[in-house]
Amino acid sequence: MSKALITTVPFGNKNRLPLELLENNKIDYLINPLNKKLTEDELAEMVTNYDVIIAGTEPITKKVMDAATNLKLISRVGIGLDSVDLLEAEKRGITVSYTPDAPAPAVAELTIGLMLTLLRSVQVSNMEMHSGKWNRFFGRRLSEVTIGIIGVGRIGAGVLQHLQGFGSPRILLNDTDTNHEFNENFNVEWVDKETIYRQADIVTIHTPLTAKTKNMVKKEQLFCMKEDAIIINTARGGIINEQDLYDVMQSKHLSGAAIDVFDFEPYNGKLQEIQRCILTAHMGSMSVDCRTRMEIEATEEVVRFLTNKSLEGVVPETEYAVQREGL
Amino acid sequence: MSKALITTVPFGNKNRLPLELLENNKIDYLINPLNKKLTEDELAEMVTNYDVIIAGTEPITKKVMDAATNLKLISRVGIGLDSVDLLEAEKRGITVSYTPDAPAPAVAELTIGLMLTLLRSVQVSNMEMHSGKWNRFFGRRLSEVTIGIIGVGRIGAGVLQHLQGFGSPRILLNDTDTNHEFNENFNVEWVDKETIYRQADIVTIHTPLTAKTKNMVKKEQLFCMKEDAIIINTARGGIINEQDLYDVMQSKHLSGAAIDVFDFEPYNGKLQEIQRCILTAHMGSMSVDCRTRMEIEATEEVVRFLTNKSLEGVVPETEYAVQREGL
Repeated sequence: MSKALITTVPFGNKNRLPLELLENNKIDYLINPLNKKLTEDELAEMVTNYDVIIAGTEPITKKVMDAATNLKLISRVGIGLDSVDLLEAEKRGITVSYTPDAPAPAVAELTIGLMLTLLRSVQVSNMEMHSGKWNRFFGRRLSEVTIGIIGVGRIGAGVLQHLQGFGSPRILLNDTDTNHEFNENFNVEWVDKETIYRQADIVTIHTPLTAKTKNMVKKEQLFCMKEDAIIINTARGGIINEQDLYDVMQSKHLSGAAIDVFDFEPYNGKLQEIQRCILTAHMGSMSVDCRTRMEIEATEEVVRFLTNKSLEGVVPETEYAVQREGL
Repeated sequence: MSKALITTVPFGNKNRLPLELLENNKIDYLINPLNKKLTEDELAEMVTNYDVIIAGTEPITKKVMDAATNLKLISRVGIGLDSVDLLEAEKRGITVSYTPDAPAPAVAELTIGLMLTLLRSVQVSNMEMHSGKWNRFFGRRLSEVTIGIIGVGRIGAGVLQHLQGFGSPRILLNDTDTNHEFNENFNVEWVDKETIYRQADIVTIHTPLTAKTKNMVKKEQLFCMKEDAIIINTARGGIINEQDLYDVMQSKHLSGAAIDVFDFEPYNGKLQEIQRCILTAHMGSMSVDCRTRMEIEATEEVVRFLTNKSLEGVVPETEYAVQREGL
């Protein structure tokens, strides 16, 4: 009987279908009993004897693979592959699959919500009101600001789509691939990242975490931004340097930030001190529909693999190339 | 020299143009020195000798008008007229003007932000994260829920317009006037209020406060709503009964609420205890652009009045009829 380790939690919580898929196909499974994001050591200890990992964002490294002598498939519930050492997996003939489309709609919608919340200081007023303080904050509307999107893949394009009903804000885009078609009503320009930092009132990041994007936004970039600008990271921890963001916001620069992803999760760090910085618990993909779709797609891939059917979510060569360039 | 009392605060803060308009037209003015929403007594004491009030939402009652022996014009910065006794003004020949279009875009955008925040429990995660707790909340996307809009005037229609880029949620509308044209892509139905309470996942209120809408949403209506439904009031305090909302949410009913307007402002009451209830300080219209437009329009009306030009924002007879029906 094949054995699957499910490391991502929660799993099968709102919809049991993925667990039923495993059960119906006689695949034995264990859901991460620590109920939190595993460290490398915890995963290395837990993973021995499993044929398959249905994986979250915990580190799947050489050390983990050394311990996982039976491992044949890593099926990522989600899109980011920064946590998986693809080159080590390749050496050992371990297949890696992912679900790149499923999380995007939930992340894009959350991002718009964070923009609107930050523009109107809703999070600050809410905290103040809950302790009996009444200040009426001035805000701005989306159509009055310039929005900079760094990374225009599935999620960045989703953000753009949601902006359709909000007048015609100026939108600055940056990506290595500028081959996109947009509704002609959009007021869109492709620019370099520096132009986004300098000109945008809202900067939102939708890139993967790679050698090139790690620490992409440091003090230098943050201080380039307008004094009352807003920055949002729903992509991956480490793209914005956390310590630098803290220092810059402590110095009164930036009117707000929203950080959903962190270097170490669960997060417990100094950004807690900054009321105008919204903090959320890596909830980008956590809409019931997207999360369910991610879990089902990742589980179906496991079933296909273990029943010798052809796979549908195999990670493409381009992702290996990114890691070969050195993360 | 004519004298104007500006009761609404802040005023002329982000843009001095309205103050310059007064100065250039040799109109003497005083900005509310208490820097908060005035009570009836405070206003009655302050208003003697003024020809004009540039008014916020403080009560302009018989008592106030009795004290304001020179008063000839009330120029409301905003749309709601529940605070002005129109029938007493009419008796005394006091003209009343307002700026009904200016605040709508800011209120509609804030409402969408509150929907997205509540659907994803951003406010709860943010408060938890700021005290070092990490819980990943499940949420829902707009396209997965049914949205009920009660009151489809300038603001309700703006909310609808913003929903364009979010797939095709089911939208239930209620208004006394159902004569609206919508983009045919919308999935819209006109229904009675009870249907909205029973079927909507999000109920958002965009009616004026009148005899008919005061206490429109009480325990009975709140308990009709789905257990995990969301209610938003960016319209006027008093439309949702505050004590009932508190009791209902304390009993674990409703997954979230957002309240921007209160019976008594500044608010300091029991809803503070409820973390999943977003509280904001009557900030619906507080985008710089809308607020500036409101202040300029209300001030231009004062200048027109005092220079004997024809007015552009005179309150229509329908608003007097509403009050004749008894508020």
